[in-house]
Amino acid sequence: MDNFMFCSPTYFSFGKGMENSVGELVKKFGGSKVLVHYGSKSAEKSGLIDRVKASLEKEGIPYVLLGGVQPNPRSSLVYKGIELCRKENVDFILAVGGGSAIDSSKAIAGGVLYDGDFWDHHCGVPIEKALPVGTVLTIAAAGSEGSGNTVITHENGMLKRGCRTEILRPKFSVLNPELTCTLPAYQTACGITDILAHLYERYLTNSKNVEVTDRIIEALMLTVINQGKKVINDPFDYEARANIMWAGTLAHNNVCGVGRTQDWNSHALEHELSGLYDCAHGAGLAVVMPAMFKYVMEKNVMLFAQVAVRVWGCNMDFEHPENTALEGIEKLQEFLCYIGMPKNFKELDAKESDIPYLAHTLCYGNGRTGTVSGYIDITEDVAEKIYKLML
Amino acid sequence: MDNFMFCSPTYFSFGKGMENSVGELVKKFGGSKVLVHYGSKSAEKSGLIDRVKASLEKEGIPYVLLGGVQPNPRSSLVYKGIELCRKENVDFILAVGGGSAIDSSKAIAGGVLYDGDFWDHHCGVPIEKALPVGTVLTIAAAGSEGSGNTVITHENGMLKRGCRTEILRPKFSVLNPELTCTLPAYQTACGITDILAHLYERYLTNSKNVEVTDRIIEALMLTVINQGKKVINDPFDYEARANIMWAGTLAHNNVCGVGRTQDWNSHALEHELSGLYDCAHGAGLAVVMPAMFKYVMEKNVMLFAQVAVRVWGCNMDFEHPENTALEGIEKLQEFLCYIGMPKNFKELDAKESDIPYLAHTLCYGNGRTGTVSGYIDITEDVAEKIYKLML
Repeated sequence: MDNFMFCSPTYFSFGKGMENSVGELVKKFGGSKVLVHYGSKSAEKSGLIDRVKASLEKEGIPYVLLGGVQPNPRSSLVYKGIELCRKENVDFILAVGGGSAIDSSKAIAGGVLYDGDFWDHHCGVPIEKALPVGTVLTIAAAGSEGSGNTVITHENGMLKRGCRTEILRPKFSVLNPELTCTLPAYQTACGITDILAHLYERYLTNSKNVEVTDRIIEALMLTVINQGKKVINDPFDYEARANIMWAGTLAHNNVCGVGRTQDWNSHALEHELSGLYDCAHGAGLAVVMPAMFKYVMEKNVMLFAQVAVRVWGCNMDFEHPENTALEGIEKLQEFLCYIGMPKNFKELDAKESDIPYLAHTLCYGNGRTGTVSGYIDITEDVAEKIYKLML
Repeated sequence: MDNFMFCSPTYFSFGKGMENSVGELVKKFGGSKVLVHYGSKSAEKSGLIDRVKASLEKEGIPYVLLGGVQPNPRSSLVYKGIELCRKENVDFILAVGGGSAIDSSKAIAGGVLYDGDFWDHHCGVPIEKALPVGTVLTIAAAGSEGSGNTVITHENGMLKRGCRTEILRPKFSVLNPELTCTLPAYQTACGITDILAHLYERYLTNSKNVEVTDRIIEALMLTVINQGKKVINDPFDYEARANIMWAGTLAHNNVCGVGRTQDWNSHALEHELSGLYDCAHGAGLAVVMPAMFKYVMEKNVMLFAQVAVRVWGCNMDFEHPENTALEGIEKLQEFLCYIGMPKNFKELDAKESDIPYLAHTLCYGNGRTGTVSGYIDITEDVAEKIYKLML
């Protein structure tokens, strides 16, 4: 096991109706003037924003509202949020929504107390201080509610760049599975896929695979698969929603990634797809993962056999473990299809003729110089080969 | 899943040589004058205390030393520690050792800033403030390095009482598996047993069993069992030590106990044994668990069958699941014997004739009024029956 530091200080308030105490949580963590930052109209229509407002009002905490966060959250709204916070002397950001609203909130939180352009933080300048952030989560997917990560897309060139620092970990996150029951099936499935991807990104390591962490990852994979099937069949299955929501948080607060290098090649390959086609991140990952795993599995056949046996219920082929490894990847794809995810370029409305462009921007975009490092080093020709496996 | 709050803010510094940076950690968490509190002479002899002192000196942090913590830590040393901290204006407690040194440190931390008798905190008076505590762990067992719990034995009547509050969670814990490699095999096995017990205490719940938490518990059980066998055969197997140490922390920081009631009957039954016979806590648990599980398994045969199949590798007997459940309990006992733990009263030097006394003090000692609540309600006659299963 590699040496590591781990700290996950976010206070999780989990369960039915918990959003009605969000005002108390803001007070507990020192907020006296709040920006409520959210995305879709559905948060307004469902009455969630009203419940959040009522809870803040009950505690006598003034707030300003800023909606309109898009999927793949944009820099323009971050700039607007920073300006608004400064003008209104906001000292606490409350994200209401999924990964996009939370990531946008984190970027604002880092930008308000920074003299320069917040985008600097996405280009390598470390964040030294930030306003505290709290969240009310409405979709189990990105894991941003328990992580220090934020990914923003800059409209100038549509650059999509991440930034990671402990300072941005939410002070608290309200996780009420009920809020996810009304999500469309497609979004639910995209979330499940994203969670599985966060787990695979940590399973594929160039460090020695360590049993404790492998087993925790497998535990969360099994949960998401079993409960994912249930929730697709019955969207109002509270227990299934609760299992998936908590698994989604643990999949990305990095308890699954300690003491090892991590992959993140799947995410890199996918970002090019959602960048070019504006497809859902989860849908892109559903197409990327099986293809990439088939390409890389020869690097550690026994690891892919391990997940095939322990998670996907395959029988071990002791004579030809590569058959078991491959069967596990095929079962992953079957599962993703079962929950309604696309399985190839065609179903994603992606074009074979774009592959050279995708491979090139992957390896040379965003300041990269020809290689994307992770479980394997992906160069332009390797990327082309992997994208071709998605046809 | 029951509603829950979860927050595990302890900063874990894990790996080889990490104790050499303990001075930086104390500084990071605001300590300017430290009480280094430890137990056995082995921490001095091994050079660990010297390395800790050197690291504090490097950061220019003054300290005072207080050794001598015993297993089942006593109130007299807590009083001494409180007095010393006040006299020396200590503002940070650094525990170096296992659960006993850490629990003693936590009790001191709560007592220094309290006007009354620290024992009040173990009799229900909530702790409102405490000095910050850090730890350098030397045995994987109690999980106190990541929990808000402390258990102290008061010499006046030898009352053993716990106290639990978020305020007592360590600010940081240094987990270097190397420090555990020189532990005697018996202590190592006691630690492994304690970790398994912390997992079973959370597995046996009167709430609905939730897949995500069941699976995480099972992941940690499998790890501790597989790596436990390795470490008994090769005490210097660093990877095995690392797996067990991290599993031990996660087994008790309560990520395995969220959203459900917990049992703790095994611990209650055991405390009477170590109270009367001064046996090691882990050894007592090894005798208690199989007996108690046999007694309670009919309450939820399928849960005991689940752990038998998923963790102990039993085949499911679909016609008679109780056979599978029982086989799992027998495999637990076989494992505990394999690592060198006692399996009955005789091997623990406990006496059948003491059973009425044990059952009575269990149910009426420590302010109890006839019942110990947990997975089942244990009354005096039930306790006698369970203790008899240990003969």
